[in-house]
Amino acid sequence: MQSPKIEQFIQLLSKLPGLGPRQAARLSYHLLDEKKEYREMLAQTIISLTQVKRCAECFQAHEQKTALCLLCASPNRDRSRIMVVEKDMDFSNIERAGVYDGLYYILGGVISPLRPKSQEKLRLRELYNRLSKANGVKEVILATSATPEGDHTARYIEQISEPFVKKNLKITRLGRGLSTGSELEYSDAETFKSAYLNRK
Amino acid sequence: MQSPKIEQFIQLLSKLPGLGPRQAARLSYHLLDEKKEYREMLAQTIISLTQVKRCAECFQAHEQKTALCLLCASPNRDRSRIMVVEKDMDFSNIERAGVYDGLYYILGGVISPLRPKSQEKLRLRELYNRLSKANGVKEVILATSATPEGDHTARYIEQISEPFVKKNLKITRLGRGLSTGSELEYSDAETFKSAYLNRK
Amino acid sequence: MQSPKIEQFIQLLSKLPGLGPRQAARLSYHLLDEKKEYREMLAQTIISLTQVKRCAECFQAHEQKTALCLLCASPNRDRSRIMVVEKDMDFSNIERAGVYDGLYYILGGVISPLRPKSQEKLRLRELYNRLSKANGVKEVILATSATPEGDHTARYIEQISEPFVKKNLKITRLGRGLSTGSELEYSDAETFKSAYLNRK
Amino acid sequence: MQSPKIEQFIQLLSKLPGLGPRQAARLSYHLLDEKKEYREMLAQTIISLTQVKRCAECFQAHEQKTALCLLCASPNRDRSRIMVVEKDMDFSNIERAGVYDGLYYILGGVISPLRPKSQEKLRLRELYNRLSKANGVKEVILATSATPEGDHTARYIEQISEPFVKKNLKITRLGRGLSTGSELEYSDAETFKSAYLNRK
Repeated sequence: MQSPKIEQFIQLLSKLPGLGPRQAARLSYHLLDEKKEYREMLAQTIISLTQVKRCAECFQAHEQKTALCLLCASPNRDRSRIMVVEKDMDFSNIERAGVYDGLYYILGGVISPLRPKSQEKLRLRELYNRLSKANGVKEVILATSATPEGDHTARYIEQISEPFVKKNLKITRLGRGLSTGSELEYSDAETFKSAYLNRK
Repeated sequence: MQSPKIEQFIQLLSKLPGLGPRQAARLSYHLLDEKKEYREMLAQTIISLTQVKRCAECFQAHEQKTALCLLCASPNRDRSRIMVVEKDMDFSNIERAGVYDGLYYILGGVISPLRPKSQEKLRLRELYNRLSKANGVKEVILATSATPEGDHTARYIEQISEPFVKKNLKITRLGRGLSTGSELEYSDAETFKSAYLNRK
Repeated sequence: MQSPKIEQFIQLLSKLPGLGPRQAARLSYHLLDEKKEYREMLAQTIISLTQVKRCAECFQAHEQKTALCLLCASPNRDRSRIMVVEKDMDFSNIERAGVYDGLYYILGGVISPLRPKSQEKLRLRELYNRLSKANGVKEVILATSATPEGDHTARYIEQISEPFVKKNLKITRLGRGLSTGSELEYSDAETFKSAYLNRK
Repeated sequence: MQSPKIEQFIQLLSKLPGLGPRQAARLSYHLLDEKKEYREMLAQTIISLTQVKRCAECFQAHEQKTALCLLCASPNRDRSRIMVVEKDMDFSNIERAGVYDGLYYILGGVISPLRPKSQEKLRLRELYNRLSKANGVKEVILATSATPEGDHTARYIEQISEPFVKKNLKITRLGRGLSTGSELEYSDAETFKSAYLNRK
């Protein structure tokens, strides 16, 4: 390697999630041969991310001058429901479905005993605080993944929410069943049981 | 290839579903080096499949002297429900879940316009006949896969069942939702919608 | 499972290499719904494999009345060369290339310390015996795979062949280099080194 | 999407090779939650790539004040050989093998009739010019991949090099054969033929 700058760039990129050293090298050489203007625009966009903040209530990324994001401030959303999702991209995907019209809460990940570092970013205490102050919220929908970690996270939230449940907050979970593409030959017992009981 | 018998065997095996020519060759040479007794047992078991019949009502494989299989003849099954499944292996997998205690109907595949040959084995007319005579059956559960072909097949069965629906037969489908392993980031709109509406 | 014969068949098939229980079940039900004539032909072909023997010299499968296979008995093959291959299918693939016109020796596998059972079928002692009696053989080409196990097997054969090497037998190995599809970005050092030294 | 800056960043990243929209989104949100210092370092490294240049002779990335890179200027490399490689990463991988001690030429890709855009970056004319002036170069080794496009590119370079071949330049290609991991059962005829002819 004759260029320390390329080497440094490959090392920086390799630390990003999902980028191995090979793809990092490929991206580095690609950017080296790109126009200077493209690199400058890319760098500026990265710098400008500092101006993006997270909503004080739901933790979505937004650029409003207010503490709240547009969705949390909107009079058109049903303020009696909060859907707790794991990640920013879950939120984007759910909004695309166009079915849900309540508020959100972006947890920032799942409880994962095997990767304790990833838990540091979880906003569990902030969720508790939000529920403490949540006037008019009647239902919290736990939209975690149907995986062991997602289930574990949902159970934990159910536990810390008990004081609010006693005050009539309803905690629900997304329904289980056949998802698009499921074949009966490969379905596990729990999926079949839910699909059977939810038949219509 | 110096052995016409090996060659013939490879060709016979290559026609079986899921066996390419390479795996067929591997199996052939493996059997060639197996003990004579193993080959004879294998051949005899294949011959003896002729004594296996399919149940006159549900089309499961069985070896009873009667026309009906043990499950269809059992007094312990709920005779007011029939679950229509695509394949023998769907039936085995559902029984393993231990949730359903009614009767079954093994269709023999799905309606697949792109593979008309596979439809020849479908027992749709026989299903119609069974429903015509089905005294005491109150519900038919269509347990087809959550795939375009599975949905298409379910809709077709709903259509041909209309005369029975008018006589109070209930036709249901397995519930949709998150199946085990589903992540919200990758869920399609229909799966999310069902999961949301079926929340609890 | 209501048919013990189907169950027995699935178990027999599951033991074959490369067939898991699911594919075994799929094949079993497929054969159940096949015509009786097909099953009988399949069973008969399996039985008839007993008449296939392995050549006394090269261990290929053949059906001649003689001990030798047609290739070993042919006057058109170069009798001064023997190519040692791992498996029957390696032999078929090499013959298809149409480059080599000498004799063969099918070893029956590789030396694999991790799977000692698979070594029982190796014809190493028989190879030694053949080389002892091999009048006029000038070269033995070790055509084992370029894998750790293939290399290990080749080295072992080189060791047991030392007495014959002293009597002027030449032992060679297939050349290393870029194989079709190789990309330089992913090539290991040994492959590159051979490719570089064998350049032309 | 409530943050136009995030949206812009995802779009910029999606254009990079090997990054789909989903991975681009994942990276964007990851960077949003990273420390400001990390983002600034990343941006600065991207900007600083403008100071990296490509060697006037071999087109490697370097940061010398001279036109030539360290390798091209080194007295320790054999200046009578030039190895033509497709990509920067091929060069890195070959150097790691520690076998070759001559000079290099980084072509910048392969001739790919199906992706004409990718050919714009190919330094074929520059290669012709370098060979015109190459005093003392006795051999050009075409180290393109053993793929149809790599072969096509090597043949094209052989054609444009004919004037130099007449003046005693030798053009070679890397040797073909079994590469690490190759199994005889799956080897194509050309690979086997080369491996057989290069045996030793």
